[in-house]
Amino acid sequence: MKFLEATYRVTGSNFRERIESVLLEQTIETPVSVAEQHPFVRENMMGRVEQVVQDGAESYLATLSLPVLTAFSDPAQLLNVLFGNSSLHADVMLEDFNLPQTVTDLLPGPRFGISGLREAAGVHGRPLTCSAIKPVGLRIDEMAEICRAFGEAGVDLIKDDHYLANQSFATFHDRVRACQAVVEDVAERTGRRPIYVPNLSGTPDVVRRQAEWAQEAGVRAVMMAPMLLGMPLLHELRMKVLDIPILAHPSFGGSVRIKTATLLGKIFRLYGADAVIFANYGGRFSYPPEVCRDIAGNLRAEWLGLNKVFPVPAGGMDADRAEELVHFFGNDTILLVGGSLLEAGPALRDKSERFVESVHAAAEGNIGV
Amino acid sequence: MKFLEATYRVTGSNFRERIESVLLEQTIETPVSVAEQHPFVRENMMGRVEQVVQDGAESYLATLSLPVLTAFSDPAQLLNVLFGNSSLHADVMLEDFNLPQTVTDLLPGPRFGISGLREAAGVHGRPLTCSAIKPVGLRIDEMAEICRAFGEAGVDLIKDDHYLANQSFATFHDRVRACQAVVEDVAERTGRRPIYVPNLSGTPDVVRRQAEWAQEAGVRAVMMAPMLLGMPLLHELRMKVLDIPILAHPSFGGSVRIKTATLLGKIFRLYGADAVIFANYGGRFSYPPEVCRDIAGNLRAEWLGLNKVFPVPAGGMDADRAEELVHFFGNDTILLVGGSLLEAGPALRDKSERFVESVHAAAEGNIGV
Repeated sequence: MKFLEATYRVTGSNFRERIESVLLEQTIETPVSVAEQHPFVRENMMGRVEQVVQDGAESYLATLSLPVLTAFSDPAQLLNVLFGNSSLHADVMLEDFNLPQTVTDLLPGPRFGISGLREAAGVHGRPLTCSAIKPVGLRIDEMAEICRAFGEAGVDLIKDDHYLANQSFATFHDRVRACQAVVEDVAERTGRRPIYVPNLSGTPDVVRRQAEWAQEAGVRAVMMAPMLLGMPLLHELRMKVLDIPILAHPSFGGSVRIKTATLLGKIFRLYGADAVIFANYGGRFSYPPEVCRDIAGNLRAEWLGLNKVFPVPAGGMDADRAEELVHFFGNDTILLVGGSLLEAGPALRDKSERFVESVHAAAEGNIGV
Repeated sequence: MKFLEATYRVTGSNFRERIESVLLEQTIETPVSVAEQHPFVRENMMGRVEQVVQDGAESYLATLSLPVLTAFSDPAQLLNVLFGNSSLHADVMLEDFNLPQTVTDLLPGPRFGISGLREAAGVHGRPLTCSAIKPVGLRIDEMAEICRAFGEAGVDLIKDDHYLANQSFATFHDRVRACQAVVEDVAERTGRRPIYVPNLSGTPDVVRRQAEWAQEAGVRAVMMAPMLLGMPLLHELRMKVLDIPILAHPSFGGSVRIKTATLLGKIFRLYGADAVIFANYGGRFSYPPEVCRDIAGNLRAEWLGLNKVFPVPAGGMDADRAEELVHFFGNDTILLVGGSLLEAGPALRDKSERFVESVHAAAEGNIGV
């Protein structure tokens, strides 16, 4: 297959011309007359408008064929061909895309996905629970204490807040050492095996060393924010560095002009995330339930034979909503509740325990999505 | 200084509450009661709303103090604190920011900037000219031929199209070797020293090796797209890998919710770009002249003692507009004209020569911006 398909939403009355200009922008980026001087370019690089469907007042969905020879040359180029320069047009949005199966030669997607992460956590048949160590500014011993409360309460994944980096007052190494020791101690004493998930942050070189060091130290999953650190780095970590699952954080991902379910549900998956955190409906963010359902749907859809990925609804989730969310998202879900537990202060462990129990209870006989 | 200042545009009637929620999101990301349990957090991490100014119907500019201890821990964290989670809010836009001088300990900005790039090109007192080798799909010998036409015509910077990666039909090494040989040959025969600017693309590891190899091969500047490859990688290349100028490409940078002049004019500069390409007014993109003036203004402003950076207006520029653009942007500018020259086909060299001459002529006695 020489072409992939990308669908753009183009708004405005001048849509025919705009769609032609998107096609040029995402392919030869020269006047057509320039490209036509070269037979190889003409045959392989020019793409085509496949379909235009009106789906609202002055709103059109245009499906374009775009050249695989350019797009599949490296992980950055695929993004470039999908939505490089056209991302700069305020009236164009990347709506969706379809790739030929050969993309998996370049991007084999998540190494672990749902089944691998379940294996790592030793949890089957119910959603995983997750909470976060925060706020930034805590001392190492305070972080370890929170980690212990979550671990003893039976929380499956205990992740760093995404503001935890390598701050002078609480370094990456000290934090990871302390929290990893806690989860290992909890495992020894309870038989459960909570996973501590440190946040990786910095330039690619630094992140790579953090990842290697953490893995060496026994850490069983990590978190990173692909839009902040670079989507190609996610892929590189998955391919060359890590042999443990990767939790992807949506920070800095706020381009309104890639449809959320496409960015978080398809692109993050394709680049290798095993679990994807997103802002859930009814929390601090304003995504409607359908968007959340679509993200989860994309992450768990049959697609190119890629491993399926855990949706991680989050963002101001109240622990009391566990039952509702388990029913909405089903059992192949990680429920991330942070602030709502941490508010409990000294009752952190108790409140975490109730959260864990409510998830376990809701999961029994859950039919889910 | 414990805090930096970030200004967000918040729209909607519920603005007081929204601004408070942005403050929480970009700082402690927990309920206030959680943070207040910890004196260090309370003093250093909580930030503050400094000012709210209404500047339109339901549009407010809120200036917040945000903690430097979090933001300055690494190059990714600064972006995270400026516009991590809040980028996910459709009614919030990052408008501008101000940093204490201590940021330069972490991010010293462009190594070369305008003066260093002028030095490298041997061009003073007039704008630099630039064109692009494209479309993707050309054979190496066709690329070399275009490169030669530009070089002989007196174009100062001859850059790769951003779709040129390491494609099987024209590999990075073959292309760089061929084009670099051309500019060296042109230099030998004419005494002028055009710079060939290859595009770096791939995962961080691959890009780093491309950068090292190109530099070794005598290349005198490179191009990369920070939003595509990751902003922290730009910084890493500048700090650890390259001793030649970096041209930054805006591809994938289409978040409408960072003000364009802030993203391209300040963030790209802070992370180390020596020249920044942007979509000019009157071309294929729809930026108004004021936005372009603001981008150029930010790149060349006195700021934190950082090197000043070349604005590179581009994106469907007609070669005939050279005079207008020289007058609009002034002499500390790189004029990038691609398709408009390449349309000339066999007359490429002649048309390039006329473009070069018109820039040189317009620069004489130019008072500029």
